[in-house]
Amino acid sequence: MRNVTLVIALGGNALLREGETGTYEEQLTHVGETAARLARVVQAGFRRILVTHGNGPQVGNLLLQNELAAASVPPNPLDGCVAQSQGGMGYMIQQGLAEAFRRAGVRRPVATVVTQVVVDPADPAFGNPTKPVGRFYTEAEACRLMGARGWRMKEDAGRGWRRLVPSPAPLEIVEVDVLRRLIESGTVVVGVGGGGIPVVRGPDRSLSGIECVVDKDLATALAARQLGAHVLVILTGVPKVCVDFGRPTQRALERVSVAELRSLHAAGHFAAGSMGPKVEAALEFLRPLPVGSREGREVLITEPGRVEEALAGRDGTHVVA
Amino acid sequence: MRNVTLVIALGGNALLREGETGTYEEQLTHVGETAARLARVVQAGFRRILVTHGNGPQVGNLLLQNELAAASVPPNPLDGCVAQSQGGMGYMIQQGLAEAFRRAGVRRPVATVVTQVVVDPADPAFGNPTKPVGRFYTEAEACRLMGARGWRMKEDAGRGWRRLVPSPAPLEIVEVDVLRRLIESGTVVVGVGGGGIPVVRGPDRSLSGIECVVDKDLATALAARQLGAHVLVILTGVPKVCVDFGRPTQRALERVSVAELRSLHAAGHFAAGSMGPKVEAALEFLRPLPVGSREGREVLITEPGRVEEALAGRDGTHVVA
Repeated sequence: MRNVTLVIALGGNALLREGETGTYEEQLTHVGETAARLARVVQAGFRRILVTHGNGPQVGNLLLQNELAAASVPPNPLDGCVAQSQGGMGYMIQQGLAEAFRRAGVRRPVATVVTQVVVDPADPAFGNPTKPVGRFYTEAEACRLMGARGWRMKEDAGRGWRRLVPSPAPLEIVEVDVLRRLIESGTVVVGVGGGGIPVVRGPDRSLSGIECVVDKDLATALAARQLGAHVLVILTGVPKVCVDFGRPTQRALERVSVAELRSLHAAGHFAAGSMGPKVEAALEFLRPLPVGSREGREVLITEPGRVEEALAGRDGTHVVA
Repeated sequence: MRNVTLVIALGGNALLREGETGTYEEQLTHVGETAARLARVVQAGFRRILVTHGNGPQVGNLLLQNELAAASVPPNPLDGCVAQSQGGMGYMIQQGLAEAFRRAGVRRPVATVVTQVVVDPADPAFGNPTKPVGRFYTEAEACRLMGARGWRMKEDAGRGWRRLVPSPAPLEIVEVDVLRRLIESGTVVVGVGGGGIPVVRGPDRSLSGIECVVDKDLATALAARQLGAHVLVILTGVPKVCVDFGRPTQRALERVSVAELRSLHAAGHFAAGSMGPKVEAALEFLRPLPVGSREGREVLITEPGRVEEALAGRDGTHVVA
């Protein structure tokens, strides 16, 4: 397994859980739990590892802090907030991993790389913002913000109004060569945080930030493709992907082909904003490679506590090409 | 010059200037100016480069945002804010450098590495906090905060009260091997931002964050020593280091030995919080190395617009071992 490259996407709940206030100490505790699981993966012999992570609650907190302090501190754009969240969360995850490695007797450097992801300014997502970010507003506040800042906003299931931002498709991980070099040297790398910092290329190929967010599972799948990874592991809150989720006919998937998963997705089994993006990320990673082919690529979807068993083929949902 | 390792410390004014409101656009403009200077250094043939930077105004803004939003968002500790500033500033600097390289026709990867720096919890600095951070408070607010949060605070030259935090000596750059590997592969690395994220080692060698800040010039000097760098470049707001600064007898230093600089510093020529820490960083970098020796190590202190001439030996202050 020394030459197998693993890309592991941590779900949002690797750091913050529903119903918690989200203190720094709570986040450190969750990071520690997740890191202990990943230490076992390294102990099992996997050497080349990229760890990615979501940042929804954290970037929401940064946006809210920016807003509440706007009279005193000029606010940062969304791409700047994503960059800050990569630093803040990368620090917590790299420290947690290093500590878990130390306890497990694993000697392995860990580093966080600030990662940009290129999107297309002509992506149709920019005409149709769908991703809710930041806090809930009253209808009156929402009306004012839509007028004053040109935000798109939407009422969210009786909980209030939220800002919607575009979620375009990721096209290119800017720092992929740096990630590859470190991973191949045996460094466990934390990168592509929050789906990457969204940037666009100008006609002269210059990069600049743009206000949107990239789905972290899709960005992770792109990174995994660009890195030539063998296994993409998507960690989430359930042990296996289910069809007929929440119904008496619910059935967990253990081994599923790309064709089968695609038809189940088309039949509406996987909810948007929940299992849907993970399934799409799995299908994206397993698309045929443009040149050559790498046998045995697969995607695992499971919860953090089962990752070791899943990698051994005994748990989780396995999607195979 | 291909095998010469340069470590370049950007001063705080590389991103934010006195008297500006500090908008994101202002910061991007300054980054672009500084990056264009550094592109010329790469064009001049230097291949191995670490760029470090201060974060005083930016971490002050983050602390203020945390405070003003504290009723809605649990505040981050100071080490978490430094980590966020590394992500946010690293993103701006790496994007600015990549753009300057592109314009100059230089092909070179750029990456930001989140960097921790170990300090000693028994450092006398923890008993004597000296570094002002964050905003100014009224005397009444300061009294309340000193009681409620146990902050040390000090009245600052009639402008109000500010929180003082410890500024202990940096002992070890945790990610130095990762920095070295990337630098040696030709990646221009942004790291050790804001002097590094301060951490302490427990008796079991586990790392955890601690509320303090590390002087960015001293942390940069340590990184340069650990990396075996040949030249430490400290960029600041003046072309050369001066003795009798601001007096009729003012004299700029062009070439100065360690012994001479040390005696000028002892005579009080270099102000604390201004040129003092840069001189101390220069002396620290040029201390004899524990094993072996590297001939020709030197420190350059100058302003960004003169860095190319200074590296060619025609400008700036050169401190030689």
